[in-house]
Amino acid sequence: VNLLIINPNTTPEITALVLREATKLARPGTRLAAATGRFGAAYVASRAAFAIAGHAALDAYAEHGAGCDGVLLACFGDPGLDALKELSEVPVVGLAEASIAAAAENGRRFSIVTGGARWGPMLEEFVAARGLAGRLASVVTVAPTGAEIARDPDRALAALAAACRDAAERDGAEAVILGGAGLAGLSARIAADVPVPLIDGLAAGLAALEAAVAAGWRKPADGPFTATPPVESAGLSPALAAKLAGG
Amino acid sequence: VNLLIINPNTTPEITALVLREATKLARPGTRLAAATGRFGAAYVASRAAFAIAGHAALDAYAEHGAGCDGVLLACFGDPGLDALKELSEVPVVGLAEASIAAAAENGRRFSIVTGGARWGPMLEEFVAARGLAGRLASVVTVAPTGAEIARDPDRALAALAAACRDAAERDGAEAVILGGAGLAGLSARIAADVPVPLIDGLAAGLAALEAAVAAGWRKPADGPFTATPPVESAGLSPALAAKLAGG
Amino acid sequence: VNLLIINPNTTPEITALVLREATKLARPGTRLAAATGRFGAAYVASRAAFAIAGHAALDAYAEHGAGCDGVLLACFGDPGLDALKELSEVPVVGLAEASIAAAAENGRRFSIVTGGARWGPMLEEFVAARGLAGRLASVVTVAPTGAEIARDPDRALAALAAACRDAAERDGAEAVILGGAGLAGLSARIAADVPVPLIDGLAAGLAALEAAVAAGWRKPADGPFTATPPVESAGLSPALAAKLAGG
Amino acid sequence: VNLLIINPNTTPEITALVLREATKLARPGTRLAAATGRFGAAYVASRAAFAIAGHAALDAYAEHGAGCDGVLLACFGDPGLDALKELSEVPVVGLAEASIAAAAENGRRFSIVTGGARWGPMLEEFVAARGLAGRLASVVTVAPTGAEIARDPDRALAALAAACRDAAERDGAEAVILGGAGLAGLSARIAADVPVPLIDGLAAGLAALEAAVAAGWRKPADGPFTATPPVESAGLSPALAAKLAGG
Amino acid sequence: VNLLIINPNTTPEITALVLREATKLARPGTRLAAATGRFGAAYVASRAAFAIAGHAALDAYAEHGAGCDGVLLACFGDPGLDALKELSEVPVVGLAEASIAAAAENGRRFSIVTGGARWGPMLEEFVAARGLAGRLASVVTVAPTGAEIARDPDRALAALAAACRDAAERDGAEAVILGGAGLAGLSARIAADVPVPLIDGLAAGLAALEAAVAAGWRKPADGPFTATPPVESAGLSPALAAKLAGG
Amino acid sequence: VNLLIINPNTTPEITALVLREATKLARPGTRLAAATGRFGAAYVASRAAFAIAGHAALDAYAEHGAGCDGVLLACFGDPGLDALKELSEVPVVGLAEASIAAAAENGRRFSIVTGGARWGPMLEEFVAARGLAGRLASVVTVAPTGAEIARDPDRALAALAAACRDAAERDGAEAVILGGAGLAGLSARIAADVPVPLIDGLAAGLAALEAAVAAGWRKPADGPFTATPPVESAGLSPALAAKLAGG
Repeated sequence: VNLLIINPNTTPEITALVLREATKLARPGTRLAAATGRFGAAYVASRAAFAIAGHAALDAYAEHGAGCDGVLLACFGDPGLDALKELSEVPVVGLAEASIAAAAENGRRFSIVTGGARWGPMLEEFVAARGLAGRLASVVTVAPTGAEIARDPDRALAALAAACRDAAERDGAEAVILGGAGLAGLSARIAADVPVPLIDGLAAGLAALEAAVAAGWRKPADGPFTATPPVESAGLSPALAAKLAGG
Repeated sequence: VNLLIINPNTTPEITALVLREATKLARPGTRLAAATGRFGAAYVASRAAFAIAGHAALDAYAEHGAGCDGVLLACFGDPGLDALKELSEVPVVGLAEASIAAAAENGRRFSIVTGGARWGPMLEEFVAARGLAGRLASVVTVAPTGAEIARDPDRALAALAAACRDAAERDGAEAVILGGAGLAGLSARIAADVPVPLIDGLAAGLAALEAAVAAGWRKPADGPFTATPPVESAGLSPALAAKLAGG
Repeated sequence: VNLLIINPNTTPEITALVLREATKLARPGTRLAAATGRFGAAYVASRAAFAIAGHAALDAYAEHGAGCDGVLLACFGDPGLDALKELSEVPVVGLAEASIAAAAENGRRFSIVTGGARWGPMLEEFVAARGLAGRLASVVTVAPTGAEIARDPDRALAALAAACRDAAERDGAEAVILGGAGLAGLSARIAADVPVPLIDGLAAGLAALEAAVAAGWRKPADGPFTATPPVESAGLSPALAAKLAGG
Repeated sequence: VNLLIINPNTTPEITALVLREATKLARPGTRLAAATGRFGAAYVASRAAFAIAGHAALDAYAEHGAGCDGVLLACFGDPGLDALKELSEVPVVGLAEASIAAAAENGRRFSIVTGGARWGPMLEEFVAARGLAGRLASVVTVAPTGAEIARDPDRALAALAAACRDAAERDGAEAVILGGAGLAGLSARIAADVPVPLIDGLAAGLAALEAAVAAGWRKPADGPFTATPPVESAGLSPALAAKLAGG
Repeated sequence: VNLLIINPNTTPEITALVLREATKLARPGTRLAAATGRFGAAYVASRAAFAIAGHAALDAYAEHGAGCDGVLLACFGDPGLDALKELSEVPVVGLAEASIAAAAENGRRFSIVTGGARWGPMLEEFVAARGLAGRLASVVTVAPTGAEIARDPDRALAALAAACRDAAERDGAEAVILGGAGLAGLSARIAADVPVPLIDGLAAGLAALEAAVAAGWRKPADGPFTATPPVESAGLSPALAAKLAGG
Repeated sequence: VNLLIINPNTTPEITALVLREATKLARPGTRLAAATGRFGAAYVASRAAFAIAGHAALDAYAEHGAGCDGVLLACFGDPGLDALKELSEVPVVGLAEASIAAAAENGRRFSIVTGGARWGPMLEEFVAARGLAGRLASVVTVAPTGAEIARDPDRALAALAAACRDAAERDGAEAVILGGAGLAGLSARIAADVPVPLIDGLAAGLAALEAAVAAGWRKPADGPFTATPPVESAGLSPALAAKLAGG
């Protein structure tokens, strides 16, 4: 099984971190490749950066997706997820999407902890759009962004653990998601300090993608995620233009 | 990894069928055992039978659960699920619970197809209680119950496939769940006739349980699914009485 | 008019208390009988005990229900209510069900006060399943369970009154329900200390049942509460097995 | 117990009809008086007539309410209900309010059948404002208004019964409310033709009011239905002006 | 373009204030007239006064509406709005209705600040009935009513500004509406003290009405706001009786 | 007042059409400029094209937005709207956003009619994300996309009018929005054939933007639409990179 991890921001170090941690989590027999966004913000922590990252994710898929059996969109918040599901011939899973589905099985209410204050309302809207607003206890953000945490994780651990405890004890979460590509690998280091199940965003995403591939996923023939209808374009990469043209 | 499958009705043939099909689906390294309800309806297709099955599931867990690493509650509709989650020290997954979480990832709206007309409103209420009413396109039931389908599956295949197509084409479902312990193994035989992803209830449940065990699930220390507070009882099996007493 | 009160836990003293208080509240011409659960927890204050009590309620109805004109399920939280409605040929009313309907007429938002911390999330789910989540201001639980309050009510009065005031003043409830079979008769003793209407669970349940009988209730011929479809069973009491078999 | 029935339209014949039918339904010991609107439409079947009837109900209460123990607002749809609850020192029940509470206990979904097409959206909004939109299967109106039905009930019976059956069979209602002051007394004549419980609006309203009085209702000391804050006015009847001034 | 402003309370000074402020806000070419309620409370700050004001608004329209191109219902909370929309042949806009539509464009959540504590729950219900409950951060009321603020606005400015800041900072509103006919003209004096967009109720209402007229609004031929069906009446003003009779 | 119209697809003819029609609708004193997307699909009628258009809208604003007083995002469905609101220092209005706010004032339920089948689920999700799902009667799409309709509008008129009538008569819409930049100017040609108010997407958007500018809109100092936090980037246009860097 060949899976493509797409990091839709433009920082290769985060791509490398995610690939390294995902390799530890993957089932035997899973082969992983990873791609970085060709354009956009160094990290995604605003609506503007998010909008650009949606395009960058499509661009990366068009360039690197040939031959893969599934795509993991590795930016928690999932920019471009529905567009990528439409454009792709293989299953696509987003970190946030998979995490909230897993969290919803662990209790009535869950929280999300991540880095970067702007993600607060953006993730609330994401959860609501997935129909789970009534299950969300809170989104708790720490001040450093995922990129900053990735550069110096030791410094952020205490704040992340405190945020997770706040989610459980103050907000009533019965499960907590630790989200953020830049936070890959950190959940194991704080889980013992959190009184409720702690869901690792990368692990949840990878498990959901592996399960979909193993279950024989196939492209919907009906509904909103059938193939993108062909359309002419201008100013795009040749690979993406070809995809849009129906290639 | 040792998993216990609980069939909370009183028909051993259905237990055997589920165990046989689950064995085909399990990851390498998973060992499966199965238990049948000690009392109750021969199959569960009414609210009365469902209420009794909730007790029977607890009774079976108290008798057979020692040493297992996880429990799969193998009656689609999940009688006693929340009680079992409370009472158990290991992760518990229900077929319906896992299936609707998987379905919700495959599109905006999903349907459930199963046998036995009474399951219609019961499953609508189950989905609503899980916060996903807005995602449910329909529950489509065929007349024979799961038990009758298990006895003569060939006869039911055409009706089940037609119900799945109705769900997709008439009701707008973008994913369809084939539910029912008695229908174990049938999804592969009709998937090609269904124009949207077809989710197998048993496969979804087993995958979710294996994922929870692999992810190092642990009993919540907080929230509604912490250990059952000890209580005296009367008239129960010694094993269940001991569990309730805090054993 | 002959009404059967079912106490689905296994403590006869609570049955006697409920019968005594209900007798004070009943209309002239109402004759009351009462039955205690044959098996299960001494009192219901966990999901496990609740699941068993659902079966016990059906068992008690099968044994004692012959000839009655209506059934009052006298455990606030209503274990087995929908199953009993399905199985029974006469109207069935639960204390919680009737209380929240009455409360919803007294203001925009209501609270529930009862004994036993585990009832908090269980009652929130009950209210949500009845479609009234948006009307619920809070569930406020005091530490002693209903059984403990029944044994020494004087000790609990101050805490119950304080909980009711909290519901009104802190949580904004415009009506408060005092729930719990073990709390029967206490609402009159604290009503003067509560600044909003205080609804007595037992009084609300009995009034709703008497009204249904007086209004000429009849078994639905259509919908989810028509008669339980006949099914074979194993390991049940002869009376309940006969009921399930269509007797 | 003295109860005042307020008919907020200006047709005394409907007041007389409601009083006659309510007398048949009342508990022993209940004494009934009735008042007709002093101004407004001959019957209420539009939003304009409804708005005027809200004022007329207050006017009638100010004139005739002295000494009564409760008020039944006898226009299905309940014009002025919340204002009357605020202004009144005794419990006030509306026919529609009481009916939907009763219906919600009889099944998951209910319908309302009444006369006059304009009531369709108005009653949908009423149910939604009471938080029960998710429980409403449909509002089915027949062409003649309640006033026309009151003048010639025999002619309308077949259409009303057919509307009730449509509600149950086509729309999936598990209980049907027959609403409309002008339809008082008709439910008994068609109940046998309806396959689900048929709730009589007048009976539901009277029973709820009698229950509230019997339960010792008292004016809220807190929340939105405490006494109307005193205010000067102009152009109103002396009795209503005095009420508004805090009399 | 001729617009009629209806002040449905009975205080001509407030009518004059609204007319004066609206004149400053109107587009060139807009001619404004204003009418005061003929009966009812001196100001509307209770449910009882609100119910009467609905009738008074219809009465004023029947008397003064001839020849106007649109009606602005100038009591924030919009008593009689839907009835007036039904009865009128020209567009009708309410201050609250227009304000919440404008606020909903400025952010995810908005608050309303106004005078008079009773407006709190009344406006919450208004917003909910318009389908925007999920967008409402809070209703913050200051103690003086709109009438009291109109008499001495300087005294209320600090409290109003503080309430607006509370809405933004404590309640999370991303836009704040300053409502109340008696508060006309005050928003400009406090906007600089509020950290989020401050929406002026009168400006929003007038702009929406001017836009509707400019867009060529026409009376719906279908749906709940087609012409009031003719009905006989008693005790009303000749003008309103004629309108109800279909004149 | 200088307003910038952004057409985020790459077809200059549609930009010209929108500019021409908007000029007819603008208030005196409004000066309009227009920009076309520099990259992306020739028209937006899929999720993939939509995701790219969000980036293109930001790119166009960075290049052409200097000095304007407001931005009209002229693609019905509003790709990149929230990102643009965040990035921009002036008010931004989307055609769909403004249209549904206007429609919600015209009745309880509204429909959207536009070209291109893929817009169906995309617009349903848009309306739901704006909190108005309960108000949406339907989205009715005709087969040709907006681009095709723009090339030959006469051919599409009958189908568009029929779709609007279906929305009103079959789906119960009380107002209909005619959406789609490519449909600019067509609403006047079919309004007489539609039995309910027909809202023109471009007119609604322009009116809302003009109103916001006239009302003295200013950039929020708090909440999710404060200025984009500065971030480094790669691979973007110099103008957009500068904007993201805080320029």
